[in-house]
Amino acid sequence: MKVPLQSHNRGPAPAQRVASAPFTAITLDDASPVPLYRQLYDGLREAILRGQLGPGARLPSTRDLAAELGVSRNTVLNAFEQLLAEGYVEGQTGSGTYVSRALPEEMLYARQVAARAQNLITKGRHLSRRGSTLSSTPVSAARSAARTRPFRSGTPALDAFPFEVWSHLAARHWRRPQRDLLGYGEPAGYRRLREAIAAYLGAARAVCCAPEQVIIVAGAQQALDLAARLLLDPGDPVLIEDPGYLGARAAFSGAGARLVPLPVDDEGLDILAAKDTRARLVYVTPSHQYPLGVTMSLARRLALLKWASRAGAWVLEDDYDSEYRYAGRPLAALQGLDGEGRVIYLGTFSKVLFPSLRMGYLVVPPDMVEAFVAARGVAGWYSPSVEQAILADFIAEGHFNRHIRRMRALYAERQAALLCEIELTGGLIQARAAEAGMHLIGWLPEDLDDRAVSREAAALGVEAQPLSAFCLKHKRRGGLLLGYAGYDRQEMREGRRKLVAAINTTRKRRDTAMRATEAR
Amino acid sequence: MKVPLQSHNRGPAPAQRVASAPFTAITLDDASPVPLYRQLYDGLREAILRGQLGPGARLPSTRDLAAELGVSRNTVLNAFEQLLAEGYVEGQTGSGTYVSRALPEEMLYARQVAARAQNLITKGRHLSRRGSTLSSTPVSAARSAARTRPFRSGTPALDAFPFEVWSHLAARHWRRPQRDLLGYGEPAGYRRLREAIAAYLGAARAVCCAPEQVIIVAGAQQALDLAARLLLDPGDPVLIEDPGYLGARAAFSGAGARLVPLPVDDEGLDILAAKDTRARLVYVTPSHQYPLGVTMSLARRLALLKWASRAGAWVLEDDYDSEYRYAGRPLAALQGLDGEGRVIYLGTFSKVLFPSLRMGYLVVPPDMVEAFVAARGVAGWYSPSVEQAILADFIAEGHFNRHIRRMRALYAERQAALLCEIELTGGLIQARAAEAGMHLIGWLPEDLDDRAVSREAAALGVEAQPLSAFCLKHKRRGGLLLGYAGYDRQEMREGRRKLVAAINTTRKRRDTAMRATEAR
Repeated sequence: MKVPLQSHNRGPAPAQRVASAPFTAITLDDASPVPLYRQLYDGLREAILRGQLGPGARLPSTRDLAAELGVSRNTVLNAFEQLLAEGYVEGQTGSGTYVSRALPEEMLYARQVAARAQNLITKGRHLSRRGSTLSSTPVSAARSAARTRPFRSGTPALDAFPFEVWSHLAARHWRRPQRDLLGYGEPAGYRRLREAIAAYLGAARAVCCAPEQVIIVAGAQQALDLAARLLLDPGDPVLIEDPGYLGARAAFSGAGARLVPLPVDDEGLDILAAKDTRARLVYVTPSHQYPLGVTMSLARRLALLKWASRAGAWVLEDDYDSEYRYAGRPLAALQGLDGEGRVIYLGTFSKVLFPSLRMGYLVVPPDMVEAFVAARGVAGWYSPSVEQAILADFIAEGHFNRHIRRMRALYAERQAALLCEIELTGGLIQARAAEAGMHLIGWLPEDLDDRAVSREAAALGVEAQPLSAFCLKHKRRGGLLLGYAGYDRQEMREGRRKLVAAINTTRKRRDTAMRATEAR
Repeated sequence: MKVPLQSHNRGPAPAQRVASAPFTAITLDDASPVPLYRQLYDGLREAILRGQLGPGARLPSTRDLAAELGVSRNTVLNAFEQLLAEGYVEGQTGSGTYVSRALPEEMLYARQVAARAQNLITKGRHLSRRGSTLSSTPVSAARSAARTRPFRSGTPALDAFPFEVWSHLAARHWRRPQRDLLGYGEPAGYRRLREAIAAYLGAARAVCCAPEQVIIVAGAQQALDLAARLLLDPGDPVLIEDPGYLGARAAFSGAGARLVPLPVDDEGLDILAAKDTRARLVYVTPSHQYPLGVTMSLARRLALLKWASRAGAWVLEDDYDSEYRYAGRPLAALQGLDGEGRVIYLGTFSKVLFPSLRMGYLVVPPDMVEAFVAARGVAGWYSPSVEQAILADFIAEGHFNRHIRRMRALYAERQAALLCEIELTGGLIQARAAEAGMHLIGWLPEDLDDRAVSREAAALGVEAQPLSAFCLKHKRRGGLLLGYAGYDRQEMREGRRKLVAAINTTRKRRDTAMRATEAR
């Protein structure tokens, strides 16, 4: 079925339908492996990205559209929900749905991708549908992938890493490498490293696992990608935290899953807010919610496991920077509380050692080991063996625990330093001490758009990702992610001055723009 | 629709239908995102793996089954084709289709996976359909993932690698690492490495590319996985070489694609044998066909590109061990002959340096860079930066070209040595000199099963993968893959003796078994 869709401009008389020229045609193909709601979502999204549905344009009602397309109203509702969740459209179902007036920056990226895809088709070549989604979901909100500057979050204190030790261990291996470590390795990872990780997780995180359950991966991102592919089929709903981690969203979207954002409050994600009980997976960061920094309460953890048991769902626990806790009692990992083998646990060495090591791990229930190992094989076989052996030595010889202890003290100091700097903004930026982690949220004055401030800050050489880049459905007051672990007092001071300047510039520009509009 | 399917035992009167008890029920779901033929394939495959359809059992005719299930005959034909291609069933359409009597070993693996999946469902948890496929396709036919012993193919001369140089370069980086190389890296890879690879490929392989088109990946396997996900949707046909590389098959199956095996002759893959013009992608190893070792002729290369242009398809060129050519004129890579941006080129450092480095690269058309880089990001962000910098130095300082030159001479000698050893078997094993690569095919006597010989050899401590492990639809005389690059004369001599012993044992065991059958 191919039905021309009418654009409905937001006119002066609110509910009046302006029958403009047909601007696009949504093609729904019953025989396609792609669910109908997804096809509709794809078509509307493309129309928005190509500018055929401009900012503020009104979409037809779900009832009308369902009738026009000859599909169930639920199909249309699902497509609208997804567009709403991802910020392409706004407004509540019932009172009308409009194309967002302020398309977030990630969509400019998606718009480029759509233009490129169009270009490919013109040349008689095309991406798969899956490929199109996979390549239009950014894994990071950082403006520059490679540059490390204050206050980029997730960056550890690189200067404080014991490179003399690392270099010594590396030399030991490279000078006379074991032949076993040069040829083909086990997809599950190097045995000694798996043992070291299992021992560490048992002691430090109350994770209950045998070394056989530990699978070495190329960082947390690969863990997320593998879990998404193994546990989710196209169209499957996945519950995620809102705001939440972009890398996880990218992995789930790339797997064709339907994102269902749930709000986060002071106790973490509230599973009872989940209405959709068909969810196959829920993704959580219970130790230190990303990016808000909340620790999930024990009550919520138990409720989550209970829900998962009832729903027959998986829980994906991302324990990304759990090593750094400064206050409050550490809570056991969800994995350790799970009696049914529903929790897939993942951790990374990016925060505790350094990101470019590209080493992380999954801990999976015993009966899931084989599947994850096989998928790890298909995705890239195994991780570099000599580096795994160096890391195993680093842990086994006590350097790992020593480094964590030193960094915990250093990062506690640095958090205090950042709070002092924030204090010096005289209330322009507001922040509370965090119990854990490597960044704070610097809340902005209510009248300012955090994306605009972030842009101004970047122009001044400061990286401060806007909180709204991590929000889907549940909008919040604007804030900035301020990483403190990787920066000394001097860098923070400069960074704070630039942030204040960025805030002032943003406000000035906005005021000028508003006056210009009023004068017109 | 849910229809009980009848088992049809191969009885004495050939075409007689024996109506036995219903053994299973195939459920086809019209609303599912999975194509109907794939659902049918899944159901039949599971029935075979669970033993509900035993070896030799006759499947209903496609016509009857189509009528029973209320689907088109094409749907049933597609499902049967796929089962046939993968060796689950045998026989020609028309004269009856039977469950294979000799299920290849990979299926025992798949059988375990099916049992595990069943176990998960019992516990109220499940893998995605995609995950089920992804985890049931082995990437390698090696018996032991990690052990390197003669004649494992794909293993370079690890002892001849200049580790003193590598170790020196590594020490230079690790002692005082650049801060840029420790934080977050570019998904496309380290700029200097991309430049070094582009320069090398231009000079050595006539690949036509700018550094921007080079994307660093975690070995060839990740390249295959990314290409499969970006270019293929579930159900899309993909043309592959038969026999062919298992890692590629695993990536395509894992992406839900439909494998269409094409025969390989002395000039390589013959694209004119392709009847299915809806194929989205063709995967080839033109420099040195894996595993037969044929070099694709120029005429075939041009025909392939012409076909791709007409079909609007992609060509995935795997140039996995192109560095080693001993005779014959090297032919330019397909990529360099392609004027339309249809070729995705991939290479690896696993063969030329060492496998556990886990470093490979893709060269993609300029307008595909963004999509591949984004997908690389979702799949694991980027490759370890310091290792990329070490490798860039190794290439830039001339060690790479020097190593290739030395290894080319060494491997030529080793190939000659292996041919001598094979000569000494007095015709028991037969082989021809190969123009390129790191392994030969040792052809076995016509009456022997190469899988049985391979098993006996493994018991004696020799790795020799059976050619039939790489075959799908097009069966061949039995042979063994004999890697020579990684083994010295002494190891080869011992290996040869053990192979001869394995062949003799296999023959003896078979004869004993035959006599026992006859005596009965």
